[in-house]
Amino acid sequence: LNPPESLVKILREENNFLILTHTTPDGDAFGSALALKFLLDQLGKKSQVYTEIPVPSQYKFLSGIDYIRDLKELNIDGFNVLILVDCNNLRRISYDKNIIDKLHSFKGKILIIDHHIEDKSSFNSASKELVKWIDSEKAATGILIYYLIKSLEGRITKEIATNLYTAIIVDTGNFQFDNTTEEVLSIATELVRVGAKPSYIYQQCFESWSEKRFKLFTIMLNKLEILPPVAISFISKSDFQATETTESDTERFVEFLRILNNVNISALFREIEPSFIKVSLRSKGEIDVSLIARDFGGGGHKNAAGYRINDTFEGARMRLLERLTYYKLL
Amino acid sequence: LNPPESLVKILREENNFLILTHTTPDGDAFGSALALKFLLDQLGKKSQVYTEIPVPSQYKFLSGIDYIRDLKELNIDGFNVLILVDCNNLRRISYDKNIIDKLHSFKGKILIIDHHIEDKSSFNSASKELVKWIDSEKAATGILIYYLIKSLEGRITKEIATNLYTAIIVDTGNFQFDNTTEEVLSIATELVRVGAKPSYIYQQCFESWSEKRFKLFTIMLNKLEILPPVAISFISKSDFQATETTESDTERFVEFLRILNNVNISALFREIEPSFIKVSLRSKGEIDVSLIARDFGGGGHKNAAGYRINDTFEGARMRLLERLTYYKLL
Repeated sequence: LNPPESLVKILREENNFLILTHTTPDGDAFGSALALKFLLDQLGKKSQVYTEIPVPSQYKFLSGIDYIRDLKELNIDGFNVLILVDCNNLRRISYDKNIIDKLHSFKGKILIIDHHIEDKSSFNSASKELVKWIDSEKAATGILIYYLIKSLEGRITKEIATNLYTAIIVDTGNFQFDNTTEEVLSIATELVRVGAKPSYIYQQCFESWSEKRFKLFTIMLNKLEILPPVAISFISKSDFQATETTESDTERFVEFLRILNNVNISALFREIEPSFIKVSLRSKGEIDVSLIARDFGGGGHKNAAGYRINDTFEGARMRLLERLTYYKLL
Repeated sequence: LNPPESLVKILREENNFLILTHTTPDGDAFGSALALKFLLDQLGKKSQVYTEIPVPSQYKFLSGIDYIRDLKELNIDGFNVLILVDCNNLRRISYDKNIIDKLHSFKGKILIIDHHIEDKSSFNSASKELVKWIDSEKAATGILIYYLIKSLEGRITKEIATNLYTAIIVDTGNFQFDNTTEEVLSIATELVRVGAKPSYIYQQCFESWSEKRFKLFTIMLNKLEILPPVAISFISKSDFQATETTESDTERFVEFLRILNNVNISALFREIEPSFIKVSLRSKGEIDVSLIARDFGGGGHKNAAGYRINDTFEGARMRLLERLTYYKLL
């Protein structure tokens, strides 16, 4: 797999890269952004990663994580190129309108490196050049970064390997999702050969739950509603408050709800604010939940998708059940 | 890696192989036994696998599973060679004294192919030749079978690949344990290349919980006792009865208890009969729980071990805490 020549050219010719990713960044977002930063270091380029702060505790072990700056303090002056990794529309970068406005005014070149299905909503930008490398067939943006490093003849250091291995296992659910291909396992093998430590990285990403998070998980299980082949649960704002947890503590919860043999689709509703709910969907096999997410203005992949909705839990639940019925999935 | 020449010689020269494994067989036991059977088929040899019946529902998808016969109906007559896979002492094959006595009287050759630490207790046998291939450095017995197939120039068919992939993911916790090496990932890559389907096999092995099993899991979580860095839970015989579940339904439960960031050791006590308890231990990183299991007459690996004890839960719990204190792990 080769990245677009225009993208490689810009990376070779320009200097001073601003690297950004989506809101509530996950292992693929952090791992891809940091691996890219290390590649740019090898090329002798200046770069800076900005994300939402604080970094979730499970990603604090990542090599280079301390270089990340707070997106709230973003200053776009002096950057020639903006690189979006693991997202493909500026509007995914922040919920803060001021930050989005600032990004819309960015006049340099913009590169997009992502494996999500393309967000076709308007791309409002003052940029003079936009290069997209979007491959929704790939399991993780980390895989694209891997090929980018090969194309630019970079070296897969232990630090890069750790970041890319993290990107891969977070987006494949540690090799459990449908996107776990021979290619994914082959790249993972190479990353381990050069120093990535599978069980250590797994423990950091997936076995570093706080007792608070564990309580939240128990609450979710107790609320589980099984309507075969669908499993639904709901975490309210008061659940988050009672357990002193945040949205990032729910990572992997929705996958767990798929564990039952009579369940093919799991849905987790999280109340971020009253009447503002984030919905995560997971499915098994050939069931495509990204169709549903897109009907609600969201996105994702066949087996893992999500959307946001302005409604109560009850309202959002009914609207999801209606869509599931429409697609003959319930 | 090459198997002992004497073992390869016996496989080439003899006919009529009896393949057995340990009690409560898991994915490595079934996967290794069946892959070995398919290899013997390729060599034009007769063979038969006997295990405890019924096969747990999560392994019913395995290619060749229907060839397995009930260990209760074992008849050793006519077999020239007994092959033990995934266990290395006859006493691990059954709890039934009649079956063990029958095996002790077996006069043919015995081959042992296993990755567990060797059980050094006396090997009571009428066998005229015993060949052991025990490599406790390997993640799964399936890895040894893989090398055996290579040595005998067998073909890794899709059926064999599915069985070996199952063996590997069950014993590495789907590539999460410390035994997940470059070798493991490299072999997994080859198995996927020839037809093993990662997400399908994962779902069969790990996401096929019955609602009853799910209830048992919730009961276990509600009883969880966290004594950092140790997490302990207990499933009583009445819990099994109330949920209509059996011991095999607890597979993977103890690994889940390791999910907390302040927990390095998890222990699950399962009451099989009043005052007969099976204990599973799991640890993170360099903590070796097989030492403790061996002190109680059990066995296993550094991060995954177990033992049986004639005691109440309270008694067994105290004795474990005493041992943990002795090893300065608590």
